[in-house]
Amino acid sequence: MEDVVIQWQEKVSLKEPILVEGLPGVGNVGKLAADYLKDAVKARPLATIYSKYFPPQVYVNEDGTIRLVSNDLYYARGSRGRERDLLILVGDYQGLSPEGQYELTDRVLKVAQELGVKEVYTLAGFAQGHMVDTPRVLGAASSLSRVEAMKPLGVVFSRTDPGGGLLGASGLFLGLGRLYGMESVCLMGETSGYFVDPRGAEAVLKVLSQVLQRDIDLSALEGKAREIDRIAAKFREMEGKSAPEIPQAREDLGYIG
Amino acid sequence: MEDVVIQWQEKVSLKEPILVEGLPGVGNVGKLAADYLKDAVKARPLATIYSKYFPPQVYVNEDGTIRLVSNDLYYARGSRGRERDLLILVGDYQGLSPEGQYELTDRVLKVAQELGVKEVYTLAGFAQGHMVDTPRVLGAASSLSRVEAMKPLGVVFSRTDPGGGLLGASGLFLGLGRLYGMESVCLMGETSGYFVDPRGAEAVLKVLSQVLQRDIDLSALEGKAREIDRIAAKFREMEGKSAPEIPQAREDLGYIG
Amino acid sequence: MEDVVIQWQEKVSLKEPILVEGLPGVGNVGKLAADYLKDAVKARPLATIYSKYFPPQVYVNEDGTIRLVSNDLYYARGSRGRERDLLILVGDYQGLSPEGQYELTDRVLKVAQELGVKEVYTLAGFAQGHMVDTPRVLGAASSLSRVEAMKPLGVVFSRTDPGGGLLGASGLFLGLGRLYGMESVCLMGETSGYFVDPRGAEAVLKVLSQVLQRDIDLSALEGKAREIDRIAAKFREMEGKSAPEIPQAREDLGYIG
Amino acid sequence: MEDVVIQWQEKVSLKEPILVEGLPGVGNVGKLAADYLKDAVKARPLATIYSKYFPPQVYVNEDGTIRLVSNDLYYARGSRGRERDLLILVGDYQGLSPEGQYELTDRVLKVAQELGVKEVYTLAGFAQGHMVDTPRVLGAASSLSRVEAMKPLGVVFSRTDPGGGLLGASGLFLGLGRLYGMESVCLMGETSGYFVDPRGAEAVLKVLSQVLQRDIDLSALEGKAREIDRIAAKFREMEGKSAPEIPQAREDLGYIG
Repeated sequence: MEDVVIQWQEKVSLKEPILVEGLPGVGNVGKLAADYLKDAVKARPLATIYSKYFPPQVYVNEDGTIRLVSNDLYYARGSRGRERDLLILVGDYQGLSPEGQYELTDRVLKVAQELGVKEVYTLAGFAQGHMVDTPRVLGAASSLSRVEAMKPLGVVFSRTDPGGGLLGASGLFLGLGRLYGMESVCLMGETSGYFVDPRGAEAVLKVLSQVLQRDIDLSALEGKAREIDRIAAKFREMEGKSAPEIPQAREDLGYIG
Repeated sequence: MEDVVIQWQEKVSLKEPILVEGLPGVGNVGKLAADYLKDAVKARPLATIYSKYFPPQVYVNEDGTIRLVSNDLYYARGSRGRERDLLILVGDYQGLSPEGQYELTDRVLKVAQELGVKEVYTLAGFAQGHMVDTPRVLGAASSLSRVEAMKPLGVVFSRTDPGGGLLGASGLFLGLGRLYGMESVCLMGETSGYFVDPRGAEAVLKVLSQVLQRDIDLSALEGKAREIDRIAAKFREMEGKSAPEIPQAREDLGYIG
Repeated sequence: MEDVVIQWQEKVSLKEPILVEGLPGVGNVGKLAADYLKDAVKARPLATIYSKYFPPQVYVNEDGTIRLVSNDLYYARGSRGRERDLLILVGDYQGLSPEGQYELTDRVLKVAQELGVKEVYTLAGFAQGHMVDTPRVLGAASSLSRVEAMKPLGVVFSRTDPGGGLLGASGLFLGLGRLYGMESVCLMGETSGYFVDPRGAEAVLKVLSQVLQRDIDLSALEGKAREIDRIAAKFREMEGKSAPEIPQAREDLGYIG
Repeated sequence: MEDVVIQWQEKVSLKEPILVEGLPGVGNVGKLAADYLKDAVKARPLATIYSKYFPPQVYVNEDGTIRLVSNDLYYARGSRGRERDLLILVGDYQGLSPEGQYELTDRVLKVAQELGVKEVYTLAGFAQGHMVDTPRVLGAASSLSRVEAMKPLGVVFSRTDPGGGLLGASGLFLGLGRLYGMESVCLMGETSGYFVDPRGAEAVLKVLSQVLQRDIDLSALEGKAREIDRIAAKFREMEGKSAPEIPQAREDLGYIG
């Protein structure tokens, strides 16, 4: 079996496409944001990626049919105006092992290059370990010119965060992307790290919509965010009492970035 | 060494064969059922599958001779009437690693395709975490038409179970089977998950005998089931007293599905 | 880098050679026995086997020079009489991973086949979990004829031991050896499993010397054994008092078989 | 993706180059020493080594740009006099798995051979488990002649240390280097093992400067060392009180050698 198997749903030719990646990770911020973007721009399925670097697992849909775990590429055409075409990577898992992470990212980059991608945006969460009222978007980029381009959009480049660097796909797409001559930016929405966080995803998408020069209607995300706000409020209460449940909750929801 | 080594005992040409898989897993339901089926239909050994994805282990037979751990393909001819030929996969282990799971399943599917298989049934257990008096058979399938075909046979397609999907060979044969254009169904016998469960295997085989349109004499399985019933009765007593031994027993007998 | 690198010290042509394997494992019985045999028959170095399946480790000799961990093949000519040539596999480690175990064993068997080997003896320990006064030699074999050939030499073939089969190289050489058409026997010296055990090695070598029809002077092993006897006596005292140190000691010395 | 990807910054032809390796490990002694040497001799970047055997991680620089984790080869020309050219291997990580260690070391040795390297020095720390006032430099070498050449420089070859051999890149370069016909020495600076230790690095560099016949200004390392001395003094106080924090600190800072 090939290490990575790609099943194409369509053959397309894209115009200066931008790759956006959002896979499960801290607070699922990146996954939430990329899934939302995919729906908001009415992206169409392009390719399904299966791999032995994912768990040997199928999901069961509500109607009883199954679906093998995968990553999935979608694309969306830009309008005739200034918008560029989009390629969006979403999925159930990141690669389970370091080798898997490298192999999968490299393979997607190869495909992206063939489709003409020269620019990558990865979406992720940044765990602060405490409740965050108004999440900032932290950034990291492949070059100084990208750093400068992001600052006017409100992206924060901190000397200290993230101190240990970025682990997982969001960082690897930047690092390996360079070997493909691609410019790239990682947008990290601040989050507590305690639960799935639509607030962080919202913050990231606000920046991304400016980058892509696309209007993205964020109202549906607002609903989810308010629900989480209620849970967060309860957590904050508990934090005041130094509740012992919090570390446990964190363990349940902490993924690779 | 090849990752997967197949030793053929015979060269056969099969007529529209159906592949049935049952390997060790939850309550060993799938393994019990497939092993029983193999004997009941007097299936003949077709091929032995060795692999570095299995443990480096040999079993010692009662006469002092050894046997390297393996998976094994058996086949059974259908009668001249309506029965179709059968290909049955049984074995000592599932692949130890995710990669191993994918490689082994993919290899068996390749072999199955060459033998003309277009339809796969995988047998498994579904752990309820509590004693089950009359086990139902839960299902998952490759397509809606298969789901519908199973419902009249009493197979339950639940919106919530199995919530986290299927892990291991029973699910993977469905997921990867699709890439080979195969239709497939996973039949999961409910079981406590606390011990090896012939009751779950019996439930699964009752459905399967209808699917295969073969009479399978289940009386020998009944004997084993009654023995376990006695053990189960003791467990139920203990459950009433919230006995601390149960989680431990569960750990001993819980395998991948 | 090749997965397994073999460095030849000599090119030889052997007459009906018998392969004897003894690597680290339970009570180090197999390793002790094979190392002793190698010296006793004045075997000469034939090939050194390096592999990425071993730890990334070098040993430092007393003179300050280093040696990369390895397995090593030695050979010894039979006398003009009835003795056959010997090929002896000794080494620092077994493969670290299941895959490594399979790859290494398969590679040595390939080499052995090219050298004309049709018969394999693997030496191992069998952990009883309690002190053993007069260790028996348990056996397992590739065929019934080998089982029968071993019984007159005092080898015990038990219906129950080893219940879970053999794990590691000693079993794998038998299991994979069959794919090379080789006959094989595993000789397991009983041992407590608490410490390195020359008594078990002695028992194994007594059987092996009959098999190989070679006189092996075991007096040097006797010295080591008596030393261990003294330690064993102390353990036995402690066992009477159900000493808590024993399980810990066992952990330190328990390897794969 | 290739297992190991090498990006060349320059094509050079070197004269009898000596390879010096220093990667993260015990007390980071080897890494500190090699990084310092690289700066002191004004070495120039030659090649960057990426690999799926490293973690899937990027570091974020202070200016917001990223850098994929790597190992890096630098070179420095010898002066017209007696100095020879240098090839220096530094980096963020050693290979994560045993296989990765072997593959990475082998690949660097291949490159080194093509560049004409016949001599290797690896720099490492040797954890004593207690505070060390004046660290000695322990040695291990590929041949007796190298052992003898090192003794007059104050390198200690102990019969007992390191008892268990050398684990990781520092040992592997010696062991695998032999397969490339390279002579090699490992220089191990004694260190407590409790924290990053410039004193151990200093000791190692003093020996190395004699070996390379290069003056290396160690004053900058002195500053760092004095800082650590102050921390060490506090530890020593605590050791007198058998402070419970020390083992924990050790865990945090103990890497493969």
